[in-house]
This record gives sequence, C-alpha cells and structure tokens, in this order.
Amino acid sequence: MRILLTGAAGFLGSHICDRLLAEGHTVIGMDNFITGNRENLVHLVKNKDFSFIRHDVSEIITVRSKLDAVLHFASPASPNPASPFGYPNLPVETLKAGSLGTFNTLDLARINQARFLFASTSEVYGDPLEHPQVETYWGHVNSVGPRSMYDEAKRFSEALIMAYYRSKGADTRIVRIFNTYGSRMRLDDGRVVPSFIQQALHGDPLTIFGDGLQTRSFCYVDDLVDGIYRLLLSDEHLPVNIGNPSETSILDFALKINRLTGNAAGLDYSIDKRMDSDPQRRCPDISRARSLLSWEPKVGLEEGLMRTISSFKEKLGMK
Amino acid sequence: MRILLTGAAGFLGSHICDRLLAEGHTVIGMDNFITGNRENLVHLVKNKDFSFIRHDVSEIITVRSKLDAVLHFASPASPNPASPFGYPNLPVETLKAGSLGTFNTLDLARINQARFLFASTSEVYGDPLEHPQVETYWGHVNSVGPRSMYDEAKRFSEALIMAYYRSKGADTRIVRIFNTYGSRMRLDDGRVVPSFIQQALHGDPLTIFGDGLQTRSFCYVDDLVDGIYRLLLSDEHLPVNIGNPSETSILDFALKINRLTGNAAGLDYSIDKRMDSDPQRRCPDISRARSLLSWEPKVGLEEGLMRTISSFKEKLGMK
Repeated sequence: MRILLTGAAGFLGSHICDRLLAEGHTVIGMDNFITGNRENLVHLVKNKDFSFIRHDVSEIITVRSKLDAVLHFASPASPNPASPFGYPNLPVETLKAGSLGTFNTLDLARINQARFLFASTSEVYGDPLEHPQVETYWGHVNSVGPRSMYDEAKRFSEALIMAYYRSKGADTRIVRIFNTYGSRMRLDDGRVVPSFIQQALHGDPLTIFGDGLQTRSFCYVDDLVDGIYRLLLSDEHLPVNIGNPSETSILDFALKINRLTGNAAGLDYSIDKRMDSDPQRRCPDISRARSLLSWEPKVGLEEGLMRTISSFKEKLGMK
Repeated sequence: MRILLTGAAGFLGSHICDRLLAEGHTVIGMDNFITGNRENLVHLVKNKDFSFIRHDVSEIITVRSKLDAVLHFASPASPNPASPFGYPNLPVETLKAGSLGTFNTLDLARINQARFLFASTSEVYGDPLEHPQVETYWGHVNSVGPRSMYDEAKRFSEALIMAYYRSKGADTRIVRIFNTYGSRMRLDDGRVVPSFIQQALHGDPLTIFGDGLQTRSFCYVDDLVDGIYRLLLSDEHLPVNIGNPSETSILDFALKINRLTGNAAGLDYSIDKRMDSDPQRRCPDISRARSLLSWEPKVGLEEGLMRTISSFKEKLGMK
C-alpha cells in the first residue's frame, strides 16, 4: 500500500513508519515539527520507500500520487503544562490538529478511496468513573478544563470520523491509544517514563507526585504498533482500545527503573500530588482488540523498560 | 454596538436580532439558510440598522466595518432524525459550524477586539446523571453516538473558546441554552413544541413517546433572549446556563396544549419510547445566571404557550 502518515516525526509516528516499511509498504511521512523530532526519521532518509513532506495538517493537504491509506497521528500529545511541547502550551495548535487536521486527512482519504485510521486516545475517557475502560464507556471529561484542548479535539475527531463513515461511506478506523513508552520519546516533554529514566541515568532521585500509589498501565511501543497495524488491515469502524491492561503503581514503576539502571539515589516525595494533572487511574479493557484483531501485548514491563533505557542511554551518549 | 450575528435567520437568531435592534444596536445578520428561514427576517428588511450577509460560517468571514461584538449562533439545532432539518441528517454541516465556524467567528472577534458570545447548549451535558445540571457538571456524552455530531461540536467549541480566552486574551462568553420555545420555530423540524401545537391546531391527537412521564423544562424565547443579552453585556467568561428550571411532564404539557387550543382529539400513545432520542430528563440549575446576571425567567408556561399558539395560527393562516 502507499500510505500517508501525519505526525510521522513523533514518537509513535516514527515507529509506525518503521513497521509499515518493514511490511513492504510505501510511506509518505508528514509533520510540521511543532512537537515532532527530525532525529526520529534520520534513519529513513535513504530508504527509497520513504518520502517526507513538511506540512501543517491544519492546512489543506494535496498529494499527487494515489494513496491506499491515510493515518492521522499528528497532534501534540504530552499533557505536561511545564513542558513547551505539552498541549496545555499549544492549545490552539492541538485543537486545529484534531479538527481541521481531521477534516483534511478524511477528505484526502475519501478522494483516494483509501483506508483511514485515526489516533484517538484514552483521554476521551477523561478522569474515568469506571475501571477498566471499555469502548462503550462514554467518559468523564471537562469541556472547559485545563486538558480540554486535547480531550475535546480527540472526541470531536471521533464524532467527525463516525459522521464521514456513516453519511459519506468513508472507510474509517479509530484506535484509542493508552499510555505507551519506548525509544524516541522526547526526553523533555514531562511524561513519566522519560522523566524517570532521565533522572535515573543522571543518578538523581525519581520525582514522585503524592504517595505514588496511583497506577498506570504502560504499553511497550512495539506492541502498540502491532495492534494499530492489525486494526488498519481490519474492517472494524467503531473505536478499539489498544494498550496494556496490566497495572503498576507509580511507586513500583520507579523502584523498577532504579533497579534496572542501578540508580542508588532513591525517590523524591516532596512534590504535591495536586501538581499532577493525570487521572488517578486509567486501564484499558482490551476484549475487543483480543477478539476482533487477535491482539494482545507481548512485551513485559521489565523487558520493555530495559530496551527503552538502552535507547535513552544511546541518545544521551552514555554508551 | 455594531454586532455580527451568525445564524440570524434561525428561531433564536431572529429573536436576538429583534432584541439587539430594540436596544439601539446595529446588527449584521449572517446565515446560509441550511436550516434558517428567510421568513424570520422579512420584517427587518426595511430596518436601516439591519443588514444581511448570506454566508456559510465554515468559510472565512470578512466584514469591512469595525465590529464591537460577534455572536455565533449558526448550527442545525433539531435532534430529530426524521426531519431534513435535524442535525442527524446534516452531520458534517453541524460539525463544521461548531469547529470551522467557531474558529472563523473567534478570529473575526479577535481582529476587531470585539466581544464574543457563543451559543452552547444543554446537550453538552448529554444524557445527564446529575439533576439539575450545574455548569460544573462534566456531562455524559457518547462521542460516537447518534447525536455526537452536535454534542461534540458544541463541546469542541467550548474548549476552543476557552483556549482563545486563556491563551489569546479573547473576550469570550459561553451560554448553555436549554429547551426554548416561541414563535418562528420551524413547524417541520420535529421538536416537541411545534409538533404538538401543529397537531392540536389540525385537530389531531398529540403523539406521546412512551408513558409521557419524562419531563422537560421549557423556556419562553423572550426570557432566553434576555438572559443572553445580559450575558453579552457582562464580563463572565465561564459557561452560564440559561433556561427555565420549572419541570413539566410531556403528558401535562400535551394536555395543556390541547386545553389551550380547544383540541378534543386527545393523545396518541402508540409510539414506542425508544424512538425518542431525547434524554429522559434535563433541567438547568440557574444559580449562576441569577447571581451573575440578575436573571431569571419571567414568562410562565401557560402565557408563553398562548403567545406561541397565536403565532403558529398566524403562520398557518388560521387567523
């Protein structure tokens, strides 16, 4: 297939490029580098099946060659208000990527009669009142809250995609992506995995918000990409959760990273929990992915963390 | 003030035109007539303070004269899937009005350093799990459900407006409008008030979905417009509910209409409740409007219905 992928220079986007190329497809990557990183694509520069267009998806997209699939992954994605790459500091850009960007990519897919796949998010569940989250749960989101630029843009995109599917016959798919980690995450975007690993590699104590008993369920990026690829090949049009349902407390997670990196600096509990804007708990129900896509995560947390730590060491010039 | 009003030919829009003109303002009405009705503006054609631009708000808006306020009311607004004017039959138009239309009107307001007011809706609360609904309630909305084209467009607009307010200093206001009735509603858009009155005036039994015990709280249009006008003059930037908190069962409501119109044909219970897509109950908490705007509804249901029935008789050439 000839596939256009927006957000190609992002953490997830660049891994998806790799998988699509490995499967023998031709990939046109698109990014405006607001939060994407050129380094994530450097290894593809000489690949004859890969080309790149620098473009903002909120502007009309014209691609001359016939496309077989369009994947819309472009958006700021870190919730951290302390990072310049966090969506709280890019509110209008985030809202444009998840509205104008979704119109433009959907129209492009429709003109090409191409498959369409959208990167939605567990953020559509907001601060959920039900655990684990099944796709039929409607969520608990504050439309005027501090994360609304991201949550509502993603929810809007889902509604728009279903409208194109139901009323225009567009061939659409929606993946709701849960917390994911792996190589090529931005070290400086304030998300917990790169923050912890960076602190550990520098021999600093890991910063814990509150008591650390809040849980996360982290999916290793290769598992996530495999689920997305299976969804792309499927004919499922309603949203599908992809994520790892195994929950770990932030505390256990931090201790594991200190052990794997040999960091003896311990933990730093001095930060108030209220400064953490993340929900207390979020965990995917992946029954639909299991039955529709025969997918489930395969890489355990320890294995995934070892690979990630190794890649971060390389990035930091530590090996 | 010189005020641009989108959706000017709609039920609410045309009443707002009247009020703004009565207050001495200059009004530029805008509508694309997808669901708006020319007849609603005929009485303003010779008013020197009123002008009209036929335009789709999802296209860039250019207005040469300096504006003091921009009010964005353009959107299909009937949930009825059986009506060609219902938003389930205009999904993409509805999603555009509540995204591209909101971007365009916000940008216009910002360029003019004008006040901005957005017509949001009780639909942002979805099928609410709390009664009555206060503005801090996050709502219960299905992002991929049959009403999502409207609900998510309005929620997206709220998030976008707060982003413009918080990050760009735009001078914004958001009104969450609850069920409203009065003259100039489309007789054929499937909403309960025009449907009941039309059936009653034709001597037909009124169609009740289910047992009729589901409640509604209906606000007379003049009251609603007064609340919106007060909000426009205020400096309140967070959403404010405007609606009538007095609840009536659909059954009582139908009986009242039969009595006021002298309709002896009674009620028709043969329709399955499940065909009614409206939530079981929705009722505004108007504490914020009371304290911030010194506003509350003044027109009782019987008085409001008499005026509305009289206007419908005129429209149908029955007096």
